[in-house]
Amino acid sequence: MEKLFASIITIGDELLIGQVVDTNSPWMAQQLNLIGIPVIHRTAVGDNWNDIWESLDAESKKASIILITGGLGPTADDITKPLLCEYFGGKMIMDEPTLKHVTYIFEELLKRPMIERNRKQAEVPDNCTVLKNEKGTAPGMLFKKDGKVFISMPGVPHEMKWLMQHQVLPLLPQLFKTKHIEHRTLMTFGIGESFLAEKIAGIENALPDHIKLAYLPNFGMVRLRLTASGLDKSLLISEIDFHFEKLKNEVVEFLITDQDIPMHQIIAELLIKQNATLSTAESCTGGFIAHQLTSIPGASAYFKGSIVSYANEVKQNILKVSEKTLEEDGAVSEATVTQMARECIKIMHTDYSIAVSGIMGPDGGSIDKPVGMVWVAVASKTEIRSKLFQFRFDRERNIYLTATNALNFLRMLIVDNP
Amino acid sequence: MEKLFASIITIGDELLIGQVVDTNSPWMAQQLNLIGIPVIHRTAVGDNWNDIWESLDAESKKASIILITGGLGPTADDITKPLLCEYFGGKMIMDEPTLKHVTYIFEELLKRPMIERNRKQAEVPDNCTVLKNEKGTAPGMLFKKDGKVFISMPGVPHEMKWLMQHQVLPLLPQLFKTKHIEHRTLMTFGIGESFLAEKIAGIENALPDHIKLAYLPNFGMVRLRLTASGLDKSLLISEIDFHFEKLKNEVVEFLITDQDIPMHQIIAELLIKQNATLSTAESCTGGFIAHQLTSIPGASAYFKGSIVSYANEVKQNILKVSEKTLEEDGAVSEATVTQMARECIKIMHTDYSIAVSGIMGPDGGSIDKPVGMVWVAVASKTEIRSKLFQFRFDRERNIYLTATNALNFLRMLIVDNP
Repeated sequence: MEKLFASIITIGDELLIGQVVDTNSPWMAQQLNLIGIPVIHRTAVGDNWNDIWESLDAESKKASIILITGGLGPTADDITKPLLCEYFGGKMIMDEPTLKHVTYIFEELLKRPMIERNRKQAEVPDNCTVLKNEKGTAPGMLFKKDGKVFISMPGVPHEMKWLMQHQVLPLLPQLFKTKHIEHRTLMTFGIGESFLAEKIAGIENALPDHIKLAYLPNFGMVRLRLTASGLDKSLLISEIDFHFEKLKNEVVEFLITDQDIPMHQIIAELLIKQNATLSTAESCTGGFIAHQLTSIPGASAYFKGSIVSYANEVKQNILKVSEKTLEEDGAVSEATVTQMARECIKIMHTDYSIAVSGIMGPDGGSIDKPVGMVWVAVASKTEIRSKLFQFRFDRERNIYLTATNALNFLRMLIVDNP
Repeated sequence: MEKLFASIITIGDELLIGQVVDTNSPWMAQQLNLIGIPVIHRTAVGDNWNDIWESLDAESKKASIILITGGLGPTADDITKPLLCEYFGGKMIMDEPTLKHVTYIFEELLKRPMIERNRKQAEVPDNCTVLKNEKGTAPGMLFKKDGKVFISMPGVPHEMKWLMQHQVLPLLPQLFKTKHIEHRTLMTFGIGESFLAEKIAGIENALPDHIKLAYLPNFGMVRLRLTASGLDKSLLISEIDFHFEKLKNEVVEFLITDQDIPMHQIIAELLIKQNATLSTAESCTGGFIAHQLTSIPGASAYFKGSIVSYANEVKQNILKVSEKTLEEDGAVSEATVTQMARECIKIMHTDYSIAVSGIMGPDGGSIDKPVGMVWVAVASKTEIRSKLFQFRFDRERNIYLTATNALNFLRMLIVDNP
């Protein structure tokens, strides 16, 4: 079997001037991998005829499946559709089902008059298969050329996702014979990348050719990922599980999770298992820990809420941090976070609480309390722990690291009290 | 003058399986544009010798400056450095300044023993210019070939950013004659992309060739961006400002801002101008509005804090929403958010407050209160407004839209009371 690969082309000047972050490609890549189609290449081009044309040429040399997003909106900066029409040697025609759908969207959903620009969205090259886009006016389009398949989708994320889930992903395994791919990921904490590599060198060297190991370090946490590919699904699963077990045993003292999930989801699962609840008292993270926890559907099962006490006044009035503490120890101190965590658990009626106070930068630091200094306290009904952290990054990263380390600090309290 | 372009290559299997979102490339593209170097192409390849090699060939045909990130960590999945060495025909040597720096990092900062893998980080091809990386162990490397410049940097975002800011960006204008690029961006609210396009067709058609207009729609808000490029900076600025003023006047009734900033920053600037303070009472957004506001350095000037009242119990106990309201109207109701906003402004002692309560999905919806239904209230000391929204997306997007629309609802209250 010849190797089957996909390639992703994203189109839009906004990608090249950095005005938007491309979250489409990673999501598409994840989905393709799940159905056994590895992505060999991703590329981003501007709204430029020659560049798009060349990328179609180049990607079809690398892959059999070329997925294209972007460049299909109703406005004048879009040139993708006429280009695809010419590239595949077709002519533009009105697609009646699409026109009916666009008309429905305007008349029934938006209740706005439809103008010529919107009508044009229903025009497609006559040599493509139209993939209905229930979430918007621009349809997906599938072209075939020299045994390769090209699929164009709009760049609006929820439209692209709908098209992928309902049209593209069910279709591809019918068009190509796909290989099976399995991933296993674990996360470690408290061991550097180099030391980890030394520790597991024996296991890594013993891996067969079709199983690859990757290191994904992220500030004190390192994810290890095994990837196996092959035709026999059940054999592949037993093989990768065998090596994954060995890997887990080797790093057991540093192991946080053997799933590919972020820290806040680890906490969510631990809390659900204990049927316990959590609240947060956040100064420097400004609600980010609460946001992470509530980004998971069903968060109300374990998360009750947060007091974001950005101003000292709020620490004093609502979290009852004493004026004396704020004056003598300051807002970034062990005494402050301890009082915050205690009061939080009390007024929120939860089983656990997390309190954080620190200096995220770029300003506000001093010699005694430099930027990146953070006090964290975690509390249960019977125990309280506090810890000082020092991060060395920019504001965004310091906030993220404070959240992750505070959650990990709570994780240790929870696992010590099963 | 021949057109000068940059191209960005990101290396790493994690990009192709979608495990990480590439935020490096957009940031690099922004920075390059600011110094007049447009990015013509972005590409992502896996940790694969042939694919990396081919991408170097391909990108150097498109651009004069090729920036490469990733593939430089201390572990075994990294092949980029030996590849670059071979590609440019050099041999590996120990770079003494880098070795000294790596040793310093281990002995002085990390206080950990240095192993062979770490030592190897100080090896570089003998035909590159080493760019010192103060933030990590992997140095930047600059190669020249056939008039093109290739610069390799580690993929860790804060290391790459440091190298760009302190080494690469100051260097490029010395190596190439750069064109000047100007962007002007405005944001509209309450008009669809197609209608906007009709409205400004006259202005768009009158634009000279070297000024381009782009539409960047984002759920009810459309950003319009003018991009001009040329050699005479002051002429360029007066030209783009002329067209930008015309554009602003044409869309004035829908104009939110004439800067390229997100909604939470618009609010921050309005509050600073009024010397006013804000607090939030968040149910369904779970602290995301507070997080957005506090992601801006210096947020303490206008933001005091938030009560994230995810559980009804917290709405009742801390925000004093009456039991009767919660029972009769429910948590997602005008009465609830109005009480939340009122109490929030009171206990937080702020000039304004925002309260939100809704159903973000995927579960928890009903016929009366479907997923995406949100009540928002905004309050000043003398006025309170409430509004019902209905979003139709996934959880993440619904949270984002709730935050943006709640902030915009507050914006209208603020601008009506100057």
